[in-house]
Amino acid sequence: MSASANTPSQTRERVLSGMRPTGALHLGHYHGALKNWLRLQSTHDCFFFVADWHALTTHYQQREDIERNVYDMVVDWLAAGIDPEQATLFIQSRMPEHAELFTLLAMSTPSSWLERIPSYKDQVERNRELATYGFLGYPLLQAADILIYKAAGVPVGEDQTSHVEVTREVARRFNRIYSPDAPILPEPQALLTETSRLTGLDGQKMSKSAGNAIAMRDTPEVVESKINTMPTDPQRVRRGDPGDPAHCPVWPLHQVYSDGDTRAWVQQACKTAGIGCLDCKRPLIEAIQKEQAPWRERAQELLADPKKVHWIVEVGTERARAVARKTLREVRGAIGLAY
Amino acid sequence: MSASANTPSQTRERVLSGMRPTGALHLGHYHGALKNWLRLQSTHDCFFFVADWHALTTHYQQREDIERNVYDMVVDWLAAGIDPEQATLFIQSRMPEHAELFTLLAMSTPSSWLERIPSYKDQVERNRELATYGFLGYPLLQAADILIYKAAGVPVGEDQTSHVEVTREVARRFNRIYSPDAPILPEPQALLTETSRLTGLDGQKMSKSAGNAIAMRDTPEVVESKINTMPTDPQRVRRGDPGDPAHCPVWPLHQVYSDGDTRAWVQQACKTAGIGCLDCKRPLIEAIQKEQAPWRERAQELLADPKKVHWIVEVGTERARAVARKTLREVRGAIGLAY
Ligand code: SF4
Ligand code: SF4
Repeated sequence: MSASANTPSQTRERVLSGMRPTGALHLGHYHGALKNWLRLQSTHDCFFFVADWHALTTHYQQREDIERNVYDMVVDWLAAGIDPEQATLFIQSRMPEHAELFTLLAMSTPSSWLERIPSYKDQVERNRELATYGFLGYPLLQAADILIYKAAGVPVGEDQTSHVEVTREVARRFNRIYSPDAPILPEPQALLTETSRLTGLDGQKMSKSAGNAIAMRDTPEVVESKINTMPTDPQRVRRGDPGDPAHCPVWPLHQVYSDGDTRAWVQQACKTAGIGCLDCKRPLIEAIQKEQAPWRERAQELLADPKKVHWIVEVGTERARAVARKTLREVRGAIGLAY
Repeated sequence: MSASANTPSQTRERVLSGMRPTGALHLGHYHGALKNWLRLQSTHDCFFFVADWHALTTHYQQREDIERNVYDMVVDWLAAGIDPEQATLFIQSRMPEHAELFTLLAMSTPSSWLERIPSYKDQVERNRELATYGFLGYPLLQAADILIYKAAGVPVGEDQTSHVEVTREVARRFNRIYSPDAPILPEPQALLTETSRLTGLDGQKMSKSAGNAIAMRDTPEVVESKINTMPTDPQRVRRGDPGDPAHCPVWPLHQVYSDGDTRAWVQQACKTAGIGCLDCKRPLIEAIQKEQAPWRERAQELLADPKKVHWIVEVGTERARAVARKTLREVRGAIGLAY
């Protein structure tokens, strides 16, 4: 938060990424997103935000305690090593500036651009409650999130490149209409990132709602018990039955957590019934516990001082606001609005 | 702006009305809207605003000097007698709070409600450039304008009742989802107002773009020359030809500006060729000049001190903001958003 901590970031390319407030995070979030954020924060000027408005586009009818989910999640960001001296952390709903840019961009954005996004039609067909003006405008809100910080890059999975493409089109059209000589809104690049989709305790995608997750802050005891009670290859009914890791939900976790030697040992010993499943799970339990130890330590410190987390978010929000306001001034000026 | 001037308004019903920033106003604006605002300001807690975002929904491709248009218009409001001690005057684009509520309401508003508004389909069919996300959302932005002040009433012409109806539906749905026990957003009433549609110099609807308007601040000489060169009943070619007010564009102006005696005189003397057209136009010129005199005087004062107008808008905007922020706090709280 000191000036010196900020200075180097100004020469780095800015990257923006958001996460919906799902409450305490699990290992799937860590390996699917946070690990990538950790890499990015040392090389880019990172703006990481809690996308609580985005959550409303699809979950507007669930009156949850979003505020609690927000702070539980931010604690996990920090616990994982996201450094508020390097990255700017903030909450979307605390930035009316995003809503203002969203409103202004709406004026020049054809609705057909939003209607034709593949995920929109699919999801609305499956759930009519999603046929709202806000859900239709979701990619435009995302464009406002990105463009207001003039982000150079947005880390995305392959299924989200169409959203970045819309952002680029929106920026291009805005520039062409309002500022043809000196573009105001730069077109961001999609940063394709390879992230591991962690499978859960049942071999399906890890998710909180599926009840197959290991939380980042699960205690060592809970981790041990969750792994030990995981189902394994159904062919291994008795200790003496050989199994096959290819049919076992434990194996994908080894692929993420175990080194080559351990994986070779699992393959060989499982297929020959050389080990029992509990033996096989032991190194996994230890690897996860080891990964979690520093998180738990940092989280404990943060939870002992909740004001500190609020303060970190406060500082990040104001830092983001300064950038957002500057862009908005340029945008208003180009449109010709009073101010 | 003193506390005592504000106190009575708190017991009055709040009314909200906006006007697009068209620059200097003409007599059509005065008789079609401002006169009604003058009536309302003494009986209601009036919030009058410059709808510059609304203007963008249909005119996003015209890069005009919106700022100049805004202040030219506000000068005419004040010149006409709108009293900033009684009414709260502000500029929509200075209120990111409207954009925030618009964004939040979007989440729970079915897009079908917006698509089915009669004026939307009509206008988009005539002009494909209007098929934007912003134009589709125009009635929702209007709903946010109204609901953020918890306005009890909105003065509208008959063609706009469907917009107020959407506002009521949006409020109802928001309350049902987020605050079923104690509704947060009251449903506003449409205040149907009879306003005179002033015809212009050519007998068509008065409008700046049609070039048939008399500006509120036209000088006495310009008014005289504009009226004197107005076309009249085409049957009256010579002074001796009888005419018929029913076929003369001068007559609708008499209906607004002249008393019963004068109107009877016109009817009789026109049909018998008892007067020439310049005689007929004389009382009209005088009536308009008399109406304009106090406006011109007030406008001159205001134009001599441009900071005063900015200050009036500044004070009104901050007064409006206090109300808007209070509503937003309630809305955010009901949704469960952090803050
Ligand atoms: S030994 Fe390991 S890989 Fe094989 S079935 Fe048991 S848990 Fe699965
Ligand atoms: S006398 Fe009056 S009403 Fe008759 S044609 Fe002339 S201007 Fe029109």
